[in-house]
Amino acid sequence: MSNSKPKLLQLLPAWSWLSHYSPVKFKSDVLASLIVVAMLVPQGMAYAMLAGLPPIMGLYASILPMILYAMLGSSSTLSIGPVAIISMMTFATLNPLFEVGSPVYIEAATLLALMVGIISLLLGLMRFGFLIQLISHPVIQSFIIASALLIAVGQFKFLVDVPLQANNLQQFVFSLLEYLHLIHWPSLVFGLLSIGLLIYLPKILKSQAVQSRIGSTDFLVRAVPLMLVALGILAVVYLNLQTQGIKTVGAIPSGFPPLSFPHWNWDLVLTLLPGATMIAMISFVESLSIAQATALQQRSQLNSNQELIALGIANISAGVSSAFPVTGSLSRTVVNADAGARTPMAGVLSSLLIILVSLFFTGFFEELPLAILAATIIVSIWKLVDFQPFMNAWRYSKADGIAMWVTFFGVVLIDISTGLIIGIISTFVLMLWRISRPHIAVVGLIEGTQHFRNVQRHQVLTSDQVLSLRIDENLSFLNANAFKGFLINAVSDKDQLKHVILNCSSISAIDLSALEMLEDLNTELSKLNIRLHFAEVKGPVMDRLQESKLLKHLSGRIYLTHYQAIRDLSPDLFNDHSKDYSI
Amino acid sequence: MSNSKPKLLQLLPAWSWLSHYSPVKFKSDVLASLIVVAMLVPQGMAYAMLAGLPPIMGLYASILPMILYAMLGSSSTLSIGPVAIISMMTFATLNPLFEVGSPVYIEAATLLALMVGIISLLLGLMRFGFLIQLISHPVIQSFIIASALLIAVGQFKFLVDVPLQANNLQQFVFSLLEYLHLIHWPSLVFGLLSIGLLIYLPKILKSQAVQSRIGSTDFLVRAVPLMLVALGILAVVYLNLQTQGIKTVGAIPSGFPPLSFPHWNWDLVLTLLPGATMIAMISFVESLSIAQATALQQRSQLNSNQELIALGIANISAGVSSAFPVTGSLSRTVVNADAGARTPMAGVLSSLLIILVSLFFTGFFEELPLAILAATIIVSIWKLVDFQPFMNAWRYSKADGIAMWVTFFGVVLIDISTGLIIGIISTFVLMLWRISRPHIAVVGLIEGTQHFRNVQRHQVLTSDQVLSLRIDENLSFLNANAFKGFLINAVSDKDQLKHVILNCSSISAIDLSALEMLEDLNTELSKLNIRLHFAEVKGPVMDRLQESKLLKHLSGRIYLTHYQAIRDLSPDLFNDHSKDYSI
Repeated sequence: MSNSKPKLLQLLPAWSWLSHYSPVKFKSDVLASLIVVAMLVPQGMAYAMLAGLPPIMGLYASILPMILYAMLGSSSTLSIGPVAIISMMTFATLNPLFEVGSPVYIEAATLLALMVGIISLLLGLMRFGFLIQLISHPVIQSFIIASALLIAVGQFKFLVDVPLQANNLQQFVFSLLEYLHLIHWPSLVFGLLSIGLLIYLPKILKSQAVQSRIGSTDFLVRAVPLMLVALGILAVVYLNLQTQGIKTVGAIPSGFPPLSFPHWNWDLVLTLLPGATMIAMISFVESLSIAQATALQQRSQLNSNQELIALGIANISAGVSSAFPVTGSLSRTVVNADAGARTPMAGVLSSLLIILVSLFFTGFFEELPLAILAATIIVSIWKLVDFQPFMNAWRYSKADGIAMWVTFFGVVLIDISTGLIIGIISTFVLMLWRISRPHIAVVGLIEGTQHFRNVQRHQVLTSDQVLSLRIDENLSFLNANAFKGFLINAVSDKDQLKHVILNCSSISAIDLSALEMLEDLNTELSKLNIRLHFAEVKGPVMDRLQESKLLKHLSGRIYLTHYQAIRDLSPDLFNDHSKDYSI
Repeated sequence: MSNSKPKLLQLLPAWSWLSHYSPVKFKSDVLASLIVVAMLVPQGMAYAMLAGLPPIMGLYASILPMILYAMLGSSSTLSIGPVAIISMMTFATLNPLFEVGSPVYIEAATLLALMVGIISLLLGLMRFGFLIQLISHPVIQSFIIASALLIAVGQFKFLVDVPLQANNLQQFVFSLLEYLHLIHWPSLVFGLLSIGLLIYLPKILKSQAVQSRIGSTDFLVRAVPLMLVALGILAVVYLNLQTQGIKTVGAIPSGFPPLSFPHWNWDLVLTLLPGATMIAMISFVESLSIAQATALQQRSQLNSNQELIALGIANISAGVSSAFPVTGSLSRTVVNADAGARTPMAGVLSSLLIILVSLFFTGFFEELPLAILAATIIVSIWKLVDFQPFMNAWRYSKADGIAMWVTFFGVVLIDISTGLIIGIISTFVLMLWRISRPHIAVVGLIEGTQHFRNVQRHQVLTSDQVLSLRIDENLSFLNANAFKGFLINAVSDKDQLKHVILNCSSISAIDLSALEMLEDLNTELSKLNIRLHFAEVKGPVMDRLQESKLLKHLSGRIYLTHYQAIRDLSPDLFNDHSKDYSI
């Protein structure tokens, strides 16, 4: 919570933990990194495949970005690398432009990562981190759920080995019907078997652990995907499954990720810009919300602009090391923290382990069936598909519920980016809509107090000569007309009306349109011999009104409190109980 | 203000005045209609020219629409017909599509009127009149000023007789420079002379009236354009000015406006749709604001949906009677009311007079110089170009000032429709921006009262163990992070803090994102042994919170008043003056 650190340290948070590093911390960091890498190897390859890229790029995407984030990021446990939703968005951006998996497609993916990095870096340097506020939680939540659904059905093509399209749900259904007769049954059986193992093996392991009183089986449980991968490879090799038409990953080059700057083609850059912006935004949202959750646990402060910078540099490094857009992974971050990662060194170690894998072990994965990778994605992503949040949001607030459903249907019925944009816009529209329909109440005095409450909700004192109104919203062009209409109706009911008191306790701003409306209202009411008064005007509002025509021509007065106003204008209410009021 | 009229009468307001009509009213209506027609004939022809159409269409546009509005509209003085800004928007919509003045251009103009009518009618029937609130007053004002500027410079082409383009200001400047050598000097002299007469003749007439103590010269003053038109025609005919290259209106067909349904071409309809929507919106804004002003004077109620319906039918009638989009004219409405129009019959009579003109007097206008019509437009529109409103808005509120300048520069530098849209969007963005930067104050007790005020603005009592906060805005996704950041900073300054009281008197809504933020905050503060309390929560907000996790897990309490909270949590503040508080 302190901002007293020297400037340089703020830019390179790594110093603060490197200077206090110890062998004890190193031991827990090593353990955490081993567990994370056991998850990361199959996930990385699967997510690369999800992005329409060679599986090895999933490993590349975990090397440089992870080291650089460890140096620059402000979260000590955030695990950066390939993530399902970002991979899906990469696919959605590039799929319409190039043949999936072709050299230009791959080149464009690295360019996309570079652009995402540059955009994030610039936003961070310009201190635009606050822009994240534009996306409401329900929209993010719905976006993640809907994307998870699309990702899961999208992986189905690897289970049935036909080129299904799944940019949206109806496309998936139609292409499934079209290719129904081409389904490759051995792949499907293999894939469903994998899904079954991925779901039940962890459960069996856990119950065994309980029965046999073995200590933690966490590592084993988390290594289940890796074990399945190994089993799958063995099955392919020893049962010669390729003759059955089971597709495998195929030849994987070994070695360091090739470092090269992607070809900067301005036409392509402009075409990719909207997609890159969306990916930058979502990767920031994901990364920051994960980092925030862990930061709370550790009582460390998080600087959103610093996060943008770290994420930007991580993505730039992905772009120049033959990888694709990356961000913080929720599943791996949680595992990393649970496994005892003490410092970002855990991330550095994970990255070094991945380098070892890419240098010496890529050969192992050549016979890995694609259906197993798809099963990995489906099982891990399907956990996110949950409709309870929709019900909860709808119950608490219709506006939030609507925004969630709009986002959901936008994503699953149109596409992932359009859905998100529609969802964000819907929150703005709903907010403006709410502002345009303010809650306005006629209020009265609660007997024996100085408090005023809605006449429809409470037993209160009112007078025939005085109308007290409260509007629970700032007055602006969006609701000036509605307020005027309400007031005119309220006035028309009362023949003996002499005074209108507007309680301004909920008004923090009056814009010019509303000011003009109030001026008109003042004139109009004057002609009917009704005086307009204001009570409980806030300081900042009063400052602005000071020089307006409204105050110059106001037929009534400005009262500090509504109670004062009512004492002054309607003394008859206090005949039998003339109490002091302390102002 | 009463809604007790039978349904049918609400739909056809004409019954209410027709049934009480009298000879006295007729006399004043006749006088008013004569004066209006004296203005309308030159204006109508000039605005038709402004729209790129034959002058006769300006007369057609004043016949059916005027009669129908008189029957259906709720304002008794609104004078409907061709209006400068709508004509300009018609030109801006059609100019890029067809050659100006060609048969397809003319056909498209009638189709446009029909579409504007249908859109308005549908909006009215669906009771969407409230949509007008989406445009703030400053944006409308700035739009009108900027359009007036563009219209005035746009007419310059008739003064110099070269085909200048003026969709925006820089286009005008560049095309003026391009055509500088082609300027037709006799036309320019003729035009400038007309402008001079239009400006000074009314002044001379008025001062003469004062000197010679003649009664009202209003009629004469208002007929100045018509007199100038007559003078111009005489000059052309007797001085044979056409040999000097002075362009005139040329042959005008006489007779009733040809009635025909414009050819409904779906491709063209879709192309015109954005333009038609904008025109419908602006014609509604103009018409309604004029009608509102006069309705106030007459204490009659105005139904915005009824106005939309009347305007829609008026435009549909324009579309089927060889005219172009129409709306209420400010200048003619004011003249109509000033001249003593008592009922909408004045409009019916004006319309009958225009029929007479189109039947028998069109021949007179054949020799009318275009430069005179242009001068009429320039002089009448230039009065609107005034930058004082920009200064006033800027002084009162930076947001309104910015919106005005954005609209202004959008209109004059891009084009009239784009400028308006940019202006409207800017008001939304500025509103969301303001919401995202709420005013949050640490408050303290004003000694001897029950009132709390900003510690930075007032001398107040505070305690080291209790932090009192007030946010002057609804809590939503746009400001949840900002609020949390403010609170965390405020908390970090106080070591002995035990309680945080959030004063909710300005909060009328808490959305789901903000609710989740408050839940997090409650958990987080609990871990620091700080309890979170709420005070002065409004009824509707409380209703919603009732079932939330926030209330279930809240570490502190909900207090009816902030004073109660502080008495309870910080009794030390009241040691020396233990006063009663009445709740």
